[in-house]
Amino acid sequence: MPNANIDLGEILRNIQLIIEYDGTNYVGWQIQKNGISIQQVIQNAVYKVMGELVSLTASGRTDSGVHAYGQSANFFTTCTIPTDKIPLALNSNLPGDIRIIKAYEKDMKFHSRYNALGKIYEYKILNSLVGTALDRDRVWNISRELDKDKMEKVLKHFIGTYDFTAFSSVHSSVKDKVRTINGLDMTNIDNEFFIFTIEGTGFLYNMVRIIVGTIVDVGLGRLMPDDIPEIINSKDRKKAGKTAPAKGLYLKEVLY
Amino acid sequence: MPNANIDLGEILRNIQLIIEYDGTNYVGWQIQKNGISIQQVIQNAVYKVMGELVSLTASGRTDSGVHAYGQSANFFTTCTIPTDKIPLALNSNLPGDIRIIKAYEKDMKFHSRYNALGKIYEYKILNSLVGTALDRDRVWNISRELDKDKMEKVLKHFIGTYDFTAFSSVHSSVKDKVRTINGLDMTNIDNEFFIFTIEGTGFLYNMVRIIVGTIVDVGLGRLMPDDIPEIINSKDRKKAGKTAPAKGLYLKEVLY
Repeated sequence: MPNANIDLGEILRNIQLIIEYDGTNYVGWQIQKNGISIQQVIQNAVYKVMGELVSLTASGRTDSGVHAYGQSANFFTTCTIPTDKIPLALNSNLPGDIRIIKAYEKDMKFHSRYNALGKIYEYKILNSLVGTALDRDRVWNISRELDKDKMEKVLKHFIGTYDFTAFSSVHSSVKDKVRTINGLDMTNIDNEFFIFTIEGTGFLYNMVRIIVGTIVDVGLGRLMPDDIPEIINSKDRKKAGKTAPAKGLYLKEVLY
Repeated sequence: MPNANIDLGEILRNIQLIIEYDGTNYVGWQIQKNGISIQQVIQNAVYKVMGELVSLTASGRTDSGVHAYGQSANFFTTCTIPTDKIPLALNSNLPGDIRIIKAYEKDMKFHSRYNALGKIYEYKILNSLVGTALDRDRVWNISRELDKDKMEKVLKHFIGTYDFTAFSSVHSSVKDKVRTINGLDMTNIDNEFFIFTIEGTGFLYNMVRIIVGTIVDVGLGRLMPDDIPEIINSKDRKKAGKTAPAKGLYLKEVLY
């Protein structure tokens, strides 16, 4: 809501930003004491451009190393810069690993998190013995061979509305762990590069990364595709696969 | 040729490495006094793994910031590690931004530069007002709109055997500037991403980057497609476009 240093006599606007970032060099989206966050860096740029100490509300946090093609965050400002000029103004005050793709003026009730109807994430895996120099911070490299057919068979088991406790970090504090996954697709390029696209109404902490870790366990033969319903029913985090590394995860789009 | 510290009584092997690297954090391929080179880092890894101070001979230098999917370099060694184990052994002693993709044992006469029949380079351009966070060190971002049709019309003018003096750095010391370009293709993705693939028997210093800079001048309307033959004939570096940034250039493959 309105910031401490804003004169309420001025006209307040609610600005939504669509943000691309490389999460490699940050502690994550949210402001933390142990390092530089993406949120803080953008708030600093807003201060430089608009002279106001704003608080950005994002659709949700992303962890250290997680990337975004389309994070959404909004803030309130009295600044009169035309909305379509905001991306360029902020980008010239941001480091190269954070770009404001687009800005929109929204009504005053718009809230990046509460109004989100869903999210689309991508997860990228490279299945290669030698790995990759150019994409080393962009993909999870797996050297053992993945069974593409088995991985394709597992996808359908995640689609639907379930209690995803088994696919949520034990550090998650939310009580209701029922979520709906509307889509989970796998694209395979050159039998080496796997891109998973997952769309849902909401995701628990580490949920996408644990789902991907579990799909990989199927691809490596540690689990069978039909094991998934049982794992979901167990609500036991230990039955699912390990949490896939942050660097392969991309917040692609927030749906409103 | 054989290294100072090698006992010539042992059997010498000529090992070719195919190397992928992210050139961002290096002064370039070749050893220099002003910073860390890719060549030096790989030679250090060879020393750690094989205990020999070797000298790597590459197909050619790449400048600081230029990347490679498939640089080729060879060295002589008495080490008895099976050739197919060499990539993994070296990779565990290399930083993540350099990967040995493959190793081959060649006959003793094989020379990475002299035996190269040609090279394939890629150059990547993003035509976007806001730029890119994730690919900021991987593409040349151009914010002004590029005319795709005009750029397509210019490509054919570069194909053939010409004196490419106008498309060579004035710092180039070679005398014979006649080179043959066998292919120059442009791929356009989403009307935003342009990938140029150029194949030739050999390239002058900065030649690919000056050709790309000139194609971009056509795309921006500063030059017309049919201006190219005249620029080639002029042999005047000043008539061609500016040198495109290193970060968009990739040595894709060395042909033998």
